[in-house]
Amino acid sequence: MRFDIAFIGFGTVGRGFADLLLEKRELLKKAYGIEWKVVAISDIKGGSVMDPKGIDLAEAVRLADSGNGIEGMGGEKKGLGALETIRESGANFVVEVTWTNIKDGEPGYSHIKAALEMGKHVATTNKGPISLHYRELMRISSERGGRLRFEGTVLSGTPVFNLFDGPLAASGVSSIRGIVNGTTNLILSEMEKGRTYSEVLKEAQRMGYAEADPTMDVEGWDAAAKAAILANHFFGADIKPDAVARRGISGVTLEEVTGAIRKGGRIKLIAKAWRGDRGEARAEVAPTWLPASDPLASIGGVTNALTFSTDTLGDITIVGPGAGRRATGYALLSDMISIARSLAH
Amino acid sequence: MRFDIAFIGFGTVGRGFADLLLEKRELLKKAYGIEWKVVAISDIKGGSVMDPKGIDLAEAVRLADSGNGIEGMGGEKKGLGALETIRESGANFVVEVTWTNIKDGEPGYSHIKAALEMGKHVATTNKGPISLHYRELMRISSERGGRLRFEGTVLSGTPVFNLFDGPLAASGVSSIRGIVNGTTNLILSEMEKGRTYSEVLKEAQRMGYAEADPTMDVEGWDAAAKAAILANHFFGADIKPDAVARRGISGVTLEEVTGAIRKGGRIKLIAKAWRGDRGEARAEVAPTWLPASDPLASIGGVTNALTFSTDTLGDITIVGPGAGRRATGYALLSDMISIARSLAH
Repeated sequence: MRFDIAFIGFGTVGRGFADLLLEKRELLKKAYGIEWKVVAISDIKGGSVMDPKGIDLAEAVRLADSGNGIEGMGGEKKGLGALETIRESGANFVVEVTWTNIKDGEPGYSHIKAALEMGKHVATTNKGPISLHYRELMRISSERGGRLRFEGTVLSGTPVFNLFDGPLAASGVSSIRGIVNGTTNLILSEMEKGRTYSEVLKEAQRMGYAEADPTMDVEGWDAAAKAAILANHFFGADIKPDAVARRGISGVTLEEVTGAIRKGGRIKLIAKAWRGDRGEARAEVAPTWLPASDPLASIGGVTNALTFSTDTLGDITIVGPGAGRRATGYALLSDMISIARSLAH
Repeated sequence: MRFDIAFIGFGTVGRGFADLLLEKRELLKKAYGIEWKVVAISDIKGGSVMDPKGIDLAEAVRLADSGNGIEGMGGEKKGLGALETIRESGANFVVEVTWTNIKDGEPGYSHIKAALEMGKHVATTNKGPISLHYRELMRISSERGGRLRFEGTVLSGTPVFNLFDGPLAASGVSSIRGIVNGTTNLILSEMEKGRTYSEVLKEAQRMGYAEADPTMDVEGWDAAAKAAILANHFFGADIKPDAVARRGISGVTLEEVTGAIRKGGRIKLIAKAWRGDRGEARAEVAPTWLPASDPLASIGGVTNALTFSTDTLGDITIVGPGAGRRATGYALLSDMISIARSLAH
């Protein structure tokens, strides 16, 4: 399988994928029959370069990491916008890693749609378009034949969707619940040491773990987008993030957190998607008391985890990173391999 | 893909696989293009039946579950031994689920070898032959073209080997450690409540969680066989169970277990396989102190878990059942799907 790759967005995640592409080039060819070249990179800050003969990816990473734009490097064409890049680059594989917007999914939504309408394969870590437009995008993918994969939208590269593509094949799932937001889990973990919510939040902001406007994390919006994606993918729903029953951690008191520990448990922000009594898909985000015997209770700091209730194995829990350049970049690599395998059938 | 299946052994695990084959028949065909019939069953206690036109598997499960032999049912030929069944049944897929013997791997070793030499695919949950003869069996598999899969030898159907077949594809592993024996983990969990080793062991034996001769479990032999399989598969070793550095739990005192909890941690029987400083594969089983923040520390009762240290995602932990009719039966189903997919390439 030969992938001509266009990067739409070339921030931390895109470069994490680039690192792995370069590092694993021989292995991809030998073990999976995958050969690749990068024909275009378009980033709203870093600039844009396109070359059907192939771009020097290592050089592009170096330039972007040093804070310089990529337009200084060689390439046939410069300055194209994202949609032009998708349409004109000749890429058959589009990596959509622009910023997340869970109001209308833009600009990622338009990028993914344009690529899929042209029959291109898409791998994305962008929660906006996948949580808001899952059904439409999957329909276009199935009509035009380009695959759409989004492992990195939940738990970064820690396997969630790809887990059911092989290892848990033929397993039915009745519910999924877990810790899908590292920032709030870090805050709750720190509060367990006796520190107040506002004290910990301020430090997390200072250290770059929380945004200046922490609403997306602490009010549960990020977790709600992920719960919507899980409900839509596993339970055939069409739930948008704002329809997810949602409570964040801003109302959780120090007394509740330390009280939970005294009672032999823990409070965690749990995202949940499940099939209700009448077969309907449901999704929820809420601070939840867990007994210490629950594998999710021991997950501290920015680590993420999900428990799947299956009809074959009962409860299966996967624990791993929920963010990071390399871990999220790996989500895109595993999606690429998964697409190559699905095309080989 | 069409599988003509021969069951060698038809105890709990074999019947667990049979349950799932029957239950998932439509799904297997629709989602994975797999059609199957069972052409032979040979069990040392239940008897043997063979029919190239196909055996009524539901009836065979009913007879075996009720404690009656299967020879009362219809079928072209009765009374064949295991090796005759492998050679004469015309099966292209052999399910080896006889008893475990980690001294010389027999009779499973001879069964698997005979099947692979005839180019048949083999799925097994039998730790004996896989821990003792991994390299030889894999060589025959690769020479003759029949696939050999053994997901159920470690953590029953909870994904271990199949995890790297897709979801963790292209990831390198430097070490694997975890809880791979449910009986000893149950005993340690009960000791945490203040009960002595011998008291808990006696109860576990009464309830059927531990054998009358508990040596395989409590002296770490079962865990050592699994550590050897992990070392041989992931690190290219040829380590036999008796070469694994091994300490069981029979010497663990109540004071050590409760003392660990007072110090904010837990004692677990940890099996470990890793690459040493000079690149050599190593394997070990020992009671180990874990801090409460380690995801393995919260794994109670008969649940199993493994943490993989990878070069793509850092630490990934999978938690799930380590035994059980359905969970171990599912290991064979996931192996069958995995073989079908590998053949489609």
